[in-house]
Amino acid sequence: MTIGPLDTAAARATAEHLDRLTKPRGALGRLETTAVRLSAIAGVSPPPVPEPVVVAVFAGDHGVLAQGVTPWPKDVTAQMVVNVARGGAAINVLARQAGATVVAVDVGVDGPGAEWPAEVLVRRVRNGTADLSVEAAMLVEEAEAAFAAGRGVGADFIGGGAGCLVTGEMGIGNTTPSAALIAWFAGRPAEEVTGRGTGIDDPTLARKVDAIGRGLARTRAAGIEEPMAVLASLGGLEIAALAGYVTAGAEARVPVVIDGVIALAALCVAAAIEPAVTDYVFAGHRSTEPGTSVALDHLGLTPLLDLELRLGEGTGAMLAVPVLQASARIVREMATFDSAGVTEKD
Amino acid sequence: MTIGPLDTAAARATAEHLDRLTKPRGALGRLETTAVRLSAIAGVSPPPVPEPVVVAVFAGDHGVLAQGVTPWPKDVTAQMVVNVARGGAAINVLARQAGATVVAVDVGVDGPGAEWPAEVLVRRVRNGTADLSVEAAMLVEEAEAAFAAGRGVGADFIGGGAGCLVTGEMGIGNTTPSAALIAWFAGRPAEEVTGRGTGIDDPTLARKVDAIGRGLARTRAAGIEEPMAVLASLGGLEIAALAGYVTAGAEARVPVVIDGVIALAALCVAAAIEPAVTDYVFAGHRSTEPGTSVALDHLGLTPLLDLELRLGEGTGAMLAVPVLQASARIVREMATFDSAGVTEKD
Repeated sequence: MTIGPLDTAAARATAEHLDRLTKPRGALGRLETTAVRLSAIAGVSPPPVPEPVVVAVFAGDHGVLAQGVTPWPKDVTAQMVVNVARGGAAINVLARQAGATVVAVDVGVDGPGAEWPAEVLVRRVRNGTADLSVEAAMLVEEAEAAFAAGRGVGADFIGGGAGCLVTGEMGIGNTTPSAALIAWFAGRPAEEVTGRGTGIDDPTLARKVDAIGRGLARTRAAGIEEPMAVLASLGGLEIAALAGYVTAGAEARVPVVIDGVIALAALCVAAAIEPAVTDYVFAGHRSTEPGTSVALDHLGLTPLLDLELRLGEGTGAMLAVPVLQASARIVREMATFDSAGVTEKD
Repeated sequence: MTIGPLDTAAARATAEHLDRLTKPRGALGRLETTAVRLSAIAGVSPPPVPEPVVVAVFAGDHGVLAQGVTPWPKDVTAQMVVNVARGGAAINVLARQAGATVVAVDVGVDGPGAEWPAEVLVRRVRNGTADLSVEAAMLVEEAEAAFAAGRGVGADFIGGGAGCLVTGEMGIGNTTPSAALIAWFAGRPAEEVTGRGTGIDDPTLARKVDAIGRGLARTRAAGIEEPMAVLASLGGLEIAALAGYVTAGAEARVPVVIDGVIALAALCVAAAIEPAVTDYVFAGHRSTEPGTSVALDHLGLTPLLDLELRLGEGTGAMLAVPVLQASARIVREMATFDSAGVTEKD
């Protein structure tokens, strides 16, 4: 894995150009800092507009459903993969508006993969995970395979011309492994990072916190330390794929827009393997899941949006894409004081 | 002025439809509440997508510049009107990305209006305001004329097919009258609502607070109470036009996206005249000017974005437009549990 350093010269050139544009210095706030980092990522000033945009919706199932952590049946994962492939999910609507392409990727659904619509990319590593509250969710080799699958998908998108990757996912129960991973990497107790996901009641939340706590204790007791082994112990197949996908963006110097708590859990893993990966991502939004804020703090990221979303699929990240694109266009298209004949302040 | 009530039946129909879509209830957060209000505004479910979008950049000059409230020379207002007409300002870049039309409107520039490019709409009421710290900024009749001009511009846009109005403005020094109006209508002292605008130093800030304080005291001493008279005493011509423009949107049941502190000051005026106007607006963003938060609280609005902007021109509002459009599209385009064959939770 080779992730280069950010290009500080390109960043400086963009920052200096921003100060020549017809506006008070710094008045475009986060658009300006975003533009500077887009230059640092791409290694060029002005930064390229982050497009075309592709969102991979990695799907997987979760053995921890046996602990009653969600009222949604497991079959919904596969049903939603079909819904995404047919264009009916929320992420499809938001992607169409943004001019982005949606690709559903089966990395670990526990269902009839042979019957997928042709649009679904099949990279299945195994049929769902084991129950993380009682045993490792998967083998280390399986975590590595799912990571490699996601990295390959990201690299393929970029090879096909993508200028911006968006993280998406679908997996009934996947806020549970996400909370477990965030708790692990941020060093926080289960109850601090565990939320109501799709909107669960108090008894379900208690079972969820308990399952996560047992998974964390089991992992500690096993003396596991390597990030990939932690991922295998507590993770999900779609989370492993997302960690690889984010890494592929960083390796190719293509910005990655991170969605909510599941993508942030994957980023915690990817950053534990290679810290430089966080330089290449933008946190799209702050979801209402408590693990989101814990992970953002742990990773040192400030999200672009807060629209009180808790859906996943990549929806919050997709809504942030126009902000990234606007940031680049400001640098590329605005007039300077000189070119517009506008007087600067005293 | 006739502003009707929100359509609660249309709102309810959209809220009920949102609960049938393939997502956990409420999981799209502010997109859902926005979609419901778009229906209440338009009086139809599903809500129309707010498009085409037009932003009016109302421009005016300010006599209070005599008090040294900004380091920017007055001529920059006229220079920036030309920059906007030629497509080089920040608002032009953001509008192009959003597919929106920008119209610069001279309602009170103190400069060579005869030399405007043909694209500038000329509705000039007078050549800039008087110095609000020592006398009324304008006559009540002039405030009324500027309000009527803005209302006419908004009505013309809507007559021409606009489905969404965005507020924009340009006027060197116009955070000063804006802070004065917000202080007046929110009942707060000058120092609480006054910020650094384009980025002024401490002595300039002190002069600004002092000028606003004197304007407020003069207005109180004159026994002024009517909102239009307060506007004439403390306002700007572009602020008066914005108040009329916002009113035009509400009258035609077309959503208006409010930008920063100047537009919020105008909304405070419009709402003092007719409180129902606030039902028809969306606060696009929270700018870094302290008056913004005071006005948002006073008006009971929660902004969609916070990107630490302090530029004006309509930039923050324009960045929020895709959020409004996405909200409507979610209702119109997402699959339902029934149509997609997805199982609902237990």
